[in-house]
Amino acid sequence: MTKLFMFEKPLGMRDTFPSVYLKKNKLKRSIERVVESYGYEFLETPALEYFETVGEVSTVPEEQMFKLLDTEGHTLVLRPDMTAPIARVAASKLLKEKIPRRLAYSANVYRAQQREGGRPAEFEQLGIEYIGDQTISADAEVISLLNQALEQAGVKNFTVAIGHIGFVKELVREIVGTEERCEHILHYLYEHNFVGFEEHVESLSISTIDKKRLSKLLTFKGTADELSQQVDELKGQTGEEELQDLLSLYQILLAYGYSENITFDLGLVSHVSYYTGILFEVYVDGIGFPVGSGGRYNQLLQKFGKNASATGFGIRLDYLVEATEELEKESSVLVLFSQERLGEAATLAYEKRMKGQCVTLQDIKGVTDIDAYSETFDEVIPLIGHVRREK
Amino acid sequence: MTKLFMFEKPLGMRDTFPSVYLKKNKLKRSIERVVESYGYEFLETPALEYFETVGEVSTVPEEQMFKLLDTEGHTLVLRPDMTAPIARVAASKLLKEKIPRRLAYSANVYRAQQREGGRPAEFEQLGIEYIGDQTISADAEVISLLNQALEQAGVKNFTVAIGHIGFVKELVREIVGTEERCEHILHYLYEHNFVGFEEHVESLSISTIDKKRLSKLLTFKGTADELSQQVDELKGQTGEEELQDLLSLYQILLAYGYSENITFDLGLVSHVSYYTGILFEVYVDGIGFPVGSGGRYNQLLQKFGKNASATGFGIRLDYLVEATEELEKESSVLVLFSQERLGEAATLAYEKRMKGQCVTLQDIKGVTDIDAYSETFDEVIPLIGHVRREK
Repeated sequence: MTKLFMFEKPLGMRDTFPSVYLKKNKLKRSIERVVESYGYEFLETPALEYFETVGEVSTVPEEQMFKLLDTEGHTLVLRPDMTAPIARVAASKLLKEKIPRRLAYSANVYRAQQREGGRPAEFEQLGIEYIGDQTISADAEVISLLNQALEQAGVKNFTVAIGHIGFVKELVREIVGTEERCEHILHYLYEHNFVGFEEHVESLSISTIDKKRLSKLLTFKGTADELSQQVDELKGQTGEEELQDLLSLYQILLAYGYSENITFDLGLVSHVSYYTGILFEVYVDGIGFPVGSGGRYNQLLQKFGKNASATGFGIRLDYLVEATEELEKESSVLVLFSQERLGEAATLAYEKRMKGQCVTLQDIKGVTDIDAYSETFDEVIPLIGHVRREK
Repeated sequence: MTKLFMFEKPLGMRDTFPSVYLKKNKLKRSIERVVESYGYEFLETPALEYFETVGEVSTVPEEQMFKLLDTEGHTLVLRPDMTAPIARVAASKLLKEKIPRRLAYSANVYRAQQREGGRPAEFEQLGIEYIGDQTISADAEVISLLNQALEQAGVKNFTVAIGHIGFVKELVREIVGTEERCEHILHYLYEHNFVGFEEHVESLSISTIDKKRLSKLLTFKGTADELSQQVDELKGQTGEEELQDLLSLYQILLAYGYSENITFDLGLVSHVSYYTGILFEVYVDGIGFPVGSGGRYNQLLQKFGKNASATGFGIRLDYLVEATEELEKESSVLVLFSQERLGEAATLAYEKRMKGQCVTLQDIKGVTDIDAYSETFDEVIPLIGHVRREK
């Protein structure tokens, strides 16, 4: 077979080789344990959903979705995120059993790439959704859990930047007047286009004071103390309530013991039309993208007929793999045997495996280059030829 | 939003709810540990592959594949099985590092359903591929590993039925002459259409002796002892070598300590054109389909330009969930607090979680129906109102 694509994979699709898989799996299990210890229940949804059900309510742009037609002509999508599927399941079944409900997932999501840019078209997200609780305690729980999960996974030097989309919207709307102008300004922040943002603010026909306020407010980054000291300066006629929410959040995080890696970033706008309250992003030194993000969304469940508020986060496992130290390699043992000593070799392998060791039991007739093969193991135990009996 | 598909999922697609997920995940981890202890390395391949690369070499019929077009007009498929993707990765990279190579996976595979028949369109398979070792020790290892994995996962009353496709083909070809007639007969066995098989054999213009031989041979089911006693009767001019392979296999399984659940089934034909040697299926009492199957295939790697023999198995995790007893539910604790006692509640939850308990820490203001909510937990610890101080 000589084919164009003999060893090729579709654009953005990747193989995960054993060493990376091992590390990712270890990280995943360690985070899953923390998530479970907080009373969250893991579930799984299908990779394919109806576009009309899950595709349309997703925040992922339609051109990034993998779409196909089923035999009846309905459009299906490979799930672009897990929040919409979880909302579907919660609204149709789980919220009838229990509210509030704490759900979790660990699943691959799919984003079609238009051209080769190093971005994966499939990646694994581990996330939680805490549905039906409007308290700030709920926001604080989600952020605490994220902190504990990252700590326990061995992630060092991370920062959780917290903002409040409600504050941003109130304040910008107060100054620029219309919803449309507000969206326009938010878009610069969403795209991290701060030069464009400044230029745009400069071009607005508003007072110089308002221009300064817009710039200052939306570029505020600081500690809870700094935020607390500047509330009067930062707020407008509205917005104070949201700033107080952030300060209350910080008090609860203090009580939960996870206030250390927190910073406030009032210009944080993760998605233009998705989050409705407190929101956050996690950065790790040396990783160019947020390794996780989350926040409160109050309208998604409505799209499935339920009036429930929710908050949650999603972590990118592939980025965490990059953000954590290499695993200490477990010692690998090779028991190389010839048929005469099969029984002896099998017993030895069994005993070592039962003690937790990884043992490869290899018939010497199955190996061509014994030296090269043996070199890939830390320890080699040859049981070859007739058993010598001591006199 | 009132939509036709508001809560619907595509045909054959399922949600896995928390209790089932928990059970499946526990089974998976337990089997993964056994697989790793045998020196197998887990890896992951993309959900989408080029049809030309992976789709064409799969044994799954094309009409059961989910296909889509990428932006350049190439046909992609959702992987219908994991054997072909593993063969692609092994041939392109992993076999250059080490031969023989022991690989493993745990992944969802996709089979489009034409109509509602209760068959899942997505299900999780856990499997191994042992590549580049032609010895019977390799076949025996794979079957032993399967036995140990099922035992450790708590599967009871299972049987591993072992056959030899090489034996079947040699013998049928010897009697009916042409490849085409041979395929025809094998197809009845593959479909478990034993009535059709008998009728077809009856209709053949061969001697009555050959008809009896065909019937007897291909319906042989028995122990290693029975097989051993009937070798002379069962073999033709050819076929003795394959029967001896099966008896050697049994001797190695005895040495490995996994001979108990073994039975020989000479009529076993799992795939018409895939396996080339020893093959097997696993049955569990009360489950209508094999929970796992595997065997030796010597031609798949050739399709990726490598001349390597391989053997392996795949287990259906959804069937195993059905085949094992319910988990003992872990005790769930609810710490219900009001703001005044937040610190106390947070400390209690932290301590209990660190001891391995699952603790839901719930702000009472976040719950509407406190009684109904509390009832979903095994233990409720209320920390509400001001702390009473003893005099």
